[in-house]
Amino acid sequence: MNTGIVRKLGERIRQGERRSLARAITLLESTLDPHRGEAEALLADVLPAAGRSIRLGITGVPGVGKSTFIEALGYRLAESGHRLAVLTIDPSSVISGGAVLGDKTRMGKLSSHPGVFIRPSPTGGSSGGVARRTRESILLCEAAGYDIIMVETVGVGQSELRVAGMTDFFILLLLPASGDELQGIKRGVMELADLILVNKADGDLDTVARRTVSDYQQAVGLIQPRTPGWKAPVLAVSALQDEGLGKVLETIHRFQAQDRESGLIEQRRSEQGREWLRQEVHDGLMDLCNREPEFVQLFRQFETEVCAGRLAATVAARKLVSDITRSKRAS
Amino acid sequence: MNTGIVRKLGERIRQGERRSLARAITLLESTLDPHRGEAEALLADVLPAAGRSIRLGITGVPGVGKSTFIEALGYRLAESGHRLAVLTIDPSSVISGGAVLGDKTRMGKLSSHPGVFIRPSPTGGSSGGVARRTRESILLCEAAGYDIIMVETVGVGQSELRVAGMTDFFILLLLPASGDELQGIKRGVMELADLILVNKADGDLDTVARRTVSDYQQAVGLIQPRTPGWKAPVLAVSALQDEGLGKVLETIHRFQAQDRESGLIEQRRSEQGREWLRQEVHDGLMDLCNREPEFVQLFRQFETEVCAGRLAATVAARKLVSDITRSKRAS
Repeated sequence: MNTGIVRKLGERIRQGERRSLARAITLLESTLDPHRGEAEALLADVLPAAGRSIRLGITGVPGVGKSTFIEALGYRLAESGHRLAVLTIDPSSVISGGAVLGDKTRMGKLSSHPGVFIRPSPTGGSSGGVARRTRESILLCEAAGYDIIMVETVGVGQSELRVAGMTDFFILLLLPASGDELQGIKRGVMELADLILVNKADGDLDTVARRTVSDYQQAVGLIQPRTPGWKAPVLAVSALQDEGLGKVLETIHRFQAQDRESGLIEQRRSEQGREWLRQEVHDGLMDLCNREPEFVQLFRQFETEVCAGRLAATVAARKLVSDITRSKRAS
Repeated sequence: MNTGIVRKLGERIRQGERRSLARAITLLESTLDPHRGEAEALLADVLPAAGRSIRLGITGVPGVGKSTFIEALGYRLAESGHRLAVLTIDPSSVISGGAVLGDKTRMGKLSSHPGVFIRPSPTGGSSGGVARRTRESILLCEAAGYDIIMVETVGVGQSELRVAGMTDFFILLLLPASGDELQGIKRGVMELADLILVNKADGDLDTVARRTVSDYQQAVGLIQPRTPGWKAPVLAVSALQDEGLGKVLETIHRFQAQDRESGLIEQRRSEQGREWLRQEVHDGLMDLCNREPEFVQLFRQFETEVCAGRLAATVAARKLVSDITRSKRAS
């Protein structure tokens, strides 16, 4: 590992140099072992400069208008002097509606703003994979001076949970339609939301949108709020017509103000750190089982026995764990 | 470990001796290290006699009438000559409606039937905990000659996923009411179901129940079936009035018949074995981090650093994994 290069890269990131930031994120995403070492050195280097942003998570099913929403809200923020980083899931690599528009025309107006950094992350097949590097990317963006970070995720699978677990404020976008069954929104996702927006509240859909708002306001009342003392507001917006976004910003500011008194964000981040470590240790250990040839072979042998019903998985697992680790207890 | 005692216990289980079966499950549930060794030896001993049953998973929110349903269906099965084991979550240890009735009056009629074995398992606080020993308990019950195993879980948290992952046929009980939001049923759970029953289709609720059935029939049509070629039927039943249960049994038999041609259950069990092993290895590794004093201390140190934002979790995790394992790769 070339520590000189890493230190130089860290310095440039702290100076807010966009190209270095982009290169550093590519380094984070690399799966090559030497890159991983450099990425970790870089993280250690920039960490003291990270943490000073509000992290917004944004989710919703494909077609709900996430890109349009991020573009509209982001533009307002950038124009009012904020430095905004948007970390999105690469639409070309998921079966999402976004792919239709193609990578380049997506958020065209926003991406050319000098105060804005947009980074699509390849999903790499697993939602866990995205999140793993997205957390680190947030830290780099913060070190580069971005004070608002938006993390976009598609509303499928486990990715919302991951993104909610790395952001301060989680926004759920819905389509105007009644009942969550139709929208494919899981109740669990609703429980994560700090703000629920019914998008496309314009033209023909306006009436349906208002009804959806009142449906969800009722539903939110039945749910234990994620943040004590904060009941997620449900608002109608039209990202396309740029309507209702002022209220969205107001809501975020109100959340921040409430937090300043209670220290909630700090507490949330501390808990997230604990959870992140657990997740990483888990992933690291499972990676070993999947990658280290000696362990892979062992795993396969046991797997055959377990699948054939000749060995209980608990017994096999104890043997495997004892073989993998230095523990005296497991053996 | 006393291998003689373990072998004797295994023999008695295979002879169908109820008290030995009960004692063996208690052994499985013990968290003491020497007991764990005995439990594993016992599992290895009875495993060849296990596997010959149909495993039914049953879930639904508290108050849906799971106990009444299991009692009614179970009684029919027992009366027709089946040997039935019911593994339930101990109602005294969860915040479920079942607790109101108390432990003893629950399924009173069923529990006194000579062909029936009922075992409540303490949840031990974590749904993962239940499932971990429940899988093993299924194997013991099968070795004891029970040809129908029912595993009951409350419709909250991750437990349905676990139970669906250890059973051949998964039944979801619903209340007569429209919309899944009201019922707290997660879409994901619906996707696991091989059969959906709207219970309490009697008296005043009959009309609502029929409407609920048609609502869910529609919803099921939108969902990719868990079992290829099997669209989950939605039926109205009244466990209390013993109505509609004949059709439930017919459906289970139809599923078994379809399986005999396609070998689906065998395939499902093989996949479940693989998943079970993964889960156990994961749990075993995480247990080490939580229990082995040396690792616990290490984990806490890193945790403090990560929570304070002084260390990236990825960096901490790699160090931890390398300390815990014998891997050359991680170090």
